Amino acid sequence: MLSKQSHFPAATMSPPSMAAVFDKHGPIDTVIRLIEIPPVEISEKDVCVKMLAAPINPADINIIEGVYPTGATLPAVGGGEGVGEIYSVGSAVKTLSPGDLVIRSPYIPGSWQTYMVEEESFWHKIHEDTPVEFAATVSVNPVSALRMLNEFVTLKPGDSIVQNGATSIVGQCVIQLARLYGVHSINIIRDNPGSDEVKEKLIKLGADKVFTESELNVQQIKTLLGDTPQPILGLNCVGGNSATLVVKFLKQGGTMVTYGGMSKEPVTISTSNFIFKDITLKGFWLQEWKLDKTKYRDWIDSLLRLVRAGKLKYEFDAVHFEDFHTALEKAMGKHGSQRKQILIF
Amino acid sequence: MLSKQSHFPAATMSPPSMAAVFDKHGPIDTVIRLIEIPPVEISEKDVCVKMLAAPINPADINIIEGVYPTGATLPAVGGGEGVGEIYSVGSAVKTLSPGDLVIRSPYIPGSWQTYMVEEESFWHKIHEDTPVEFAATVSVNPVSALRMLNEFVTLKPGDSIVQNGATSIVGQCVIQLARLYGVHSINIIRDNPGSDEVKEKLIKLGADKVFTESELNVQQIKTLLGDTPQPILGLNCVGGNSATLVVKFLKQGGTMVTYGGMSKEPVTISTSNFIFKDITLKGFWLQEWKLDKTKYRDWIDSLLRLVRAGKLKYEFDAVHFEDFHTALEKAMGKHGSQRKQILIF
Repeated sequence: MLSKQSHFPAATMSPPSMAAVFDKHGPIDTVIRLIEIPPVEISEKDVCVKMLAAPINPADINIIEGVYPTGATLPAVGGGEGVGEIYSVGSAVKTLSPGDLVIRSPYIPGSWQTYMVEEESFWHKIHEDTPVEFAATVSVNPVSALRMLNEFVTLKPGDSIVQNGATSIVGQCVIQLARLYGVHSINIIRDNPGSDEVKEKLIKLGADKVFTESELNVQQIKTLLGDTPQPILGLNCVGGNSATLVVKFLKQGGTMVTYGGMSKEPVTISTSNFIFKDITLKGFWLQEWKLDKTKYRDWIDSLLRLVRAGKLKYEFDAVHFEDFHTALEKAMGKHGSQRKQILIF
Repeated sequence: MLSKQSHFPAATMSPPSMAAVFDKHGPIDTVIRLIEIPPVEISEKDVCVKMLAAPINPADINIIEGVYPTGATLPAVGGGEGVGEIYSVGSAVKTLSPGDLVIRSPYIPGSWQTYMVEEESFWHKIHEDTPVEFAATVSVNPVSALRMLNEFVTLKPGDSIVQNGATSIVGQCVIQLARLYGVHSINIIRDNPGSDEVKEKLIKLGADKVFTESELNVQQIKTLLGDTPQPILGLNCVGGNSATLVVKFLKQGGTMVTYGGMSKEPVTISTSNFIFKDITLKGFWLQEWKLDKTKYRDWIDSLLRLVRAGKLKYEFDAVHFEDFHTALEKAMGKHGSQRKQILIF
């Protein structure tokens, strides 16, 4: 939805908003453009927020390209999460005030714009000391990491998990949360130049083991674990051979959760893994899960507490909104593997 | 285990037993041979059973070939299930008498022999009116069908299930049990000559829909269902494309259980099936499940009650034990697809 256009004189109007808008689905760089949206009415239950930061997530790109199961009503503003500061509030708004730092949970449509107007209940106030880049990115990737570690198997201190795509924000959060839980993490990364440097970084974050895919081309993958127990949970965001490697590490009765398919290859698993190794395969989709707003806000608060305590961090590129198209190209991988692009408004 | 060879004079001895024995693992037709085993002691807690019938199951062949995770102590008698009549009992045996029809639950090792001696607690007495061919085969395939329909999802009358390999004994039991539960069954069969005849047979057993794999090479598989709801449970014993077809039929949030891999191809599933369709994949292995002997005997009794009431049946070939090697060749598929081979002693 673009915004609520008012045809009547209103008590309070938002400032005009600069927004990344798409009128139709298609290759994102051809359909998205930055335009100025006229001021909209702030009715008595509404809150007008000046956006501060918003990331470019893969799902945002897929939605615009029309390859995502949940559509958008066109024309629409892009972007799925972000943080802002309250600019003004309607007369009936009780719990929020101008200056508050807010994010919308569970999901913000249209976060790529400078001003947004939505009802009070849509906004979640967060601690004013939260770094905006983390506030902007907490509700999708870190919440996914938190939930995947908690909602499929019961992890006890001393247990292990295994994941591929370990350098992603989800991956980095999984490593740090696992460490906080006393759980070992076994991490699989791609065979890129500089993989030794990547390993070092992930170990510093708290990873127990980091392997490139080619290092796992061995008969007895388990022997690489040393004293680390075989994992009971695997997280897969790659598919193809990389998913097979996750399953190979899993112990008898283990579960692999698929939450992405970066290689665009399917997951292939042998019959004997199902029958004799009793492996369970499941999927995780943040949006599809029955979302409890209170729980969601609790997850966000607990993650941002860790951020403020210096116990949860990840790398990103902060990019000014004016450089949107450059950031988009990087987010699409046109310049090789890149860190998360966060738009700063 | 061959049997308990006694080195002491005993009160009662079994008759000599003709047995299909293997001394080492290897291609089954080269390692198995029929030999006469000398009489063994029947101690006071033992029951000596004259075997009446025993099937040749794929797992029996795999165990002998050494490609099964649970080994046998060599030399060993082949065969994993069967039924017999009590020939004589030890002096301390309380609940069983000569003439009783018995099967050993949960699993009989060494059923391919004319006489077996085991402790009383190993034998489960069944109703004397039970046809021996069904008694001989109830504890593996029909119990698998019963458990897979009951232990993964909660089926309500009006729900649907989908399965491949629908002509197997498990498949035929699934169709009949589903019908008894008021659950629709959608069945996938191979594109063999005579598939129309097979369809007719399965419909007669209670199948709602039967498709050959090639009939499912259509864009919108769901449209083939008509009024039948999309299934919440899928059963896969084939793998490869046939497993993909099972997943295609499943509704959002559905579960596919793999219990075999007849095509020797793995299960391949797209990332979007996990994430957006929320499909769960699990495995079922009758032996690995924590077996509760009382429960197991209840399942067997309930299935055999259905058999005696004419509500559960399936096709088989009864073959005299002397023709063991011919039956074995048929069971191995050397003469094309065949019905279950049941040895009659």
